Amino acid sequence: MSDRLIYLDNNATTQVDEQVLEEMLPYLKGEYANPSSMYTFAKKSSNAIKEARVKVKEFVNAESEREIIFTSCGTESANTAIRGVLSMNKDKRHIITTKVEHPCVLNVYKSLEKQGYNVDYIGVNSNGELDLEELSNKVNGDTALVSVMYANNETGVINPIDKVSEIIKSKNKNTKLYVDAVQVAGKIPIDVQACGADMLGISGHKFHAPKGVGALYVNSKTIITPLIIGGHQEKGKRAGTENVPYIAGLGKACEIAQENLHYEATEVKRLRDKLEQGILKNIFNARLNTGVANRVPNTTNIGFEYVEGELILLHMSDLGICASSGSACTSGSLEPSHVLRAMNVPFTAIHGSIRFSLSKYTTEKDIDYVNSVMPEIIEKIVKLSPYQDELAELRRRKGV
Amino acid sequence: MSDRLIYLDNNATTQVDEQVLEEMLPYLKGEYANPSSMYTFAKKSSNAIKEARVKVKEFVNAESEREIIFTSCGTESANTAIRGVLSMNKDKRHIITTKVEHPCVLNVYKSLEKQGYNVDYIGVNSNGELDLEELSNKVNGDTALVSVMYANNETGVINPIDKVSEIIKSKNKNTKLYVDAVQVAGKIPIDVQACGADMLGISGHKFHAPKGVGALYVNSKTIITPLIIGGHQEKGKRAGTENVPYIAGLGKACEIAQENLHYEATEVKRLRDKLEQGILKNIFNARLNTGVANRVPNTTNIGFEYVEGELILLHMSDLGICASSGSACTSGSLEPSHVLRAMNVPFTAIHGSIRFSLSKYTTEKDIDYVNSVMPEIIEKIVKLSPYQDELAELRRRKGV
Repeated sequence: MSDRLIYLDNNATTQVDEQVLEEMLPYLKGEYANPSSMYTFAKKSSNAIKEARVKVKEFVNAESEREIIFTSCGTESANTAIRGVLSMNKDKRHIITTKVEHPCVLNVYKSLEKQGYNVDYIGVNSNGELDLEELSNKVNGDTALVSVMYANNETGVINPIDKVSEIIKSKNKNTKLYVDAVQVAGKIPIDVQACGADMLGISGHKFHAPKGVGALYVNSKTIITPLIIGGHQEKGKRAGTENVPYIAGLGKACEIAQENLHYEATEVKRLRDKLEQGILKNIFNARLNTGVANRVPNTTNIGFEYVEGELILLHMSDLGICASSGSACTSGSLEPSHVLRAMNVPFTAIHGSIRFSLSKYTTEKDIDYVNSVMPEIIEKIVKLSPYQDELAELRRRKGV
Repeated sequence: MSDRLIYLDNNATTQVDEQVLEEMLPYLKGEYANPSSMYTFAKKSSNAIKEARVKVKEFVNAESEREIIFTSCGTESANTAIRGVLSMNKDKRHIITTKVEHPCVLNVYKSLEKQGYNVDYIGVNSNGELDLEELSNKVNGDTALVSVMYANNETGVINPIDKVSEIIKSKNKNTKLYVDAVQVAGKIPIDVQACGADMLGISGHKFHAPKGVGALYVNSKTIITPLIIGGHQEKGKRAGTENVPYIAGLGKACEIAQENLHYEATEVKRLRDKLEQGILKNIFNARLNTGVANRVPNTTNIGFEYVEGELILLHMSDLGICASSGSACTSGSLEPSHVLRAMNVPFTAIHGSIRFSLSKYTTEKDIDYVNSVMPEIIEKIVKLSPYQDELAELRRRKGV
């Protein structure tokens, strides 16, 4: 096994930023007071939460920090938003989402469907772009909620949330919009007011805060019931003693991510493009699964035709390169990705599709190395493929 | 303000043990992989969770580590257990709890009552001891669930869970028992098999792990639906990327707590008793709210008659001493504690009741100092009381 570590799986999780850890450490050491306590010793804990709340508010451009709820993860944010808003609108029985959502939304919708909700799952085209016309046709007077992810975790394809919101509100101004923004936080700017989200969730560990903290924006016009009931924390919207260290860390991560957006849009994108072009140019059976779709700057999803993705990942892992097929939250399953299936990625490529996701810590050297070894890896696996005739035909067509 | 810190509010939260922090740090630094990922780099993350699960299993003496679910806090553990087990038993509409539960149970029950459940709230006697006869009378064929806390957070009074379980199962063997064990973890041994709990919740930050991690034991015969739905984590019982650092920390905290139980039962108890006896002996209007009840070794709840608790805490805080009136999860409310009300603590003492809760970090010097200053603090506040006649009468009766 290699001692090298080239981590190109930043859509699964990210390295904690050293500055984020520094911000957290006081609350893991001497400043351990329960922020709800009344004595002077608890002031630093409660102030840490206050300050972090302002930072998250600024990061998503909420109108007020009162619109920010801290949660334990992006999944909890989605569960809280979806179930919380529906339990305040019990007369309406129609809800909409997309076929390519993360399981934290999709599986909640499936459970609501079993409970008797009418659910429409909006499709995407072959580039992974949302069918806005279908969305428009489905919203009606009974539609309580629409959930649309800001960018897809597997493909990086960005949904035009402003247009989505416009379409929904023009058909039914009372329909609420939840936006799973987990995969855009730290990659492109988030502006809840400009994009028209009623609720929006983020997860710290996707942008260099630790795993185990998230936030949920709920605008002042949207009322939700809490998912986790108990004490008065988070103004009654989320009970449980606050995770002060991670909340402080999340605030810091938001601050850093905001400053880093330009670097993402330029340097991270440049490296992603270099990786993508290197692979597409040098590997005859590689295809860009998203075509020309608008994507977050760090992600590329590439299908290698007639080979098995798991085998590719295994060979990459042996060289210390981390990437993934599908999402970490669905890994272990042998089913091909529901996202790529919704895009109608041809069966010849769907099993051999790999997601590469970069971060600010990805270096030019990392990308050069990956570009230098990928052709050999694929060539080795191609030899094991039972589809030799098809591969030969593909080579002929590509003239290689 | 004092630079001194004497922290006697360990039932609200505790200082993170340095060894726990050490255990966590690798996963906040280089070992940041998502434990669900398939590559070699993720092995350390996923092993950390596996090892922690075994440690928690051993700590509560579960039969199998498959019975342990990691959560984000004690409140989430309680919400998951209660709502999860009821949604698997929808035909039964009767549930039972106690009048002195923590809000994380009590407020879930109140919300279930609004949803149409029949709820019985079992009372306690003036020492805070559960009315087992009332409990026995209430369990019937329609009883889906009983929730009884292992020890009360405000008084430290221990409920005889083995007897509680026996009573319940003898009346209805299908009734499930949830035990909120947040306030006993690290203070007395927990043995889920011996005490007959079907489900049991703990919270890391009450025994020197950080705030933001908990665990839920669910025995193999009890089926629950998840509260947080999404990915496949925790075998489908709790979605969301695992908080690897805190989970590793929780495992370590369990290990340390187990070794420390003897110290709790002897040294912590000795210091608690010294504090308690010092106050009761030297302060004429002090009363032990729990009488002779069986308590966890670290807690004492003392009522100071005819004075305001908030004022006492303020004076204590000025000297760097942290304690509380009621629970941190209900602080900020002006209502007297629901626990002390259920115990019928006389109105003359209920507003002036203070909880002192010690830990392994409490020193003899801490206790000596508190014992030396409490009489002056109370004397000062007594002078401001509008109940001078009653106080004079009390002094006469006590012969001081």
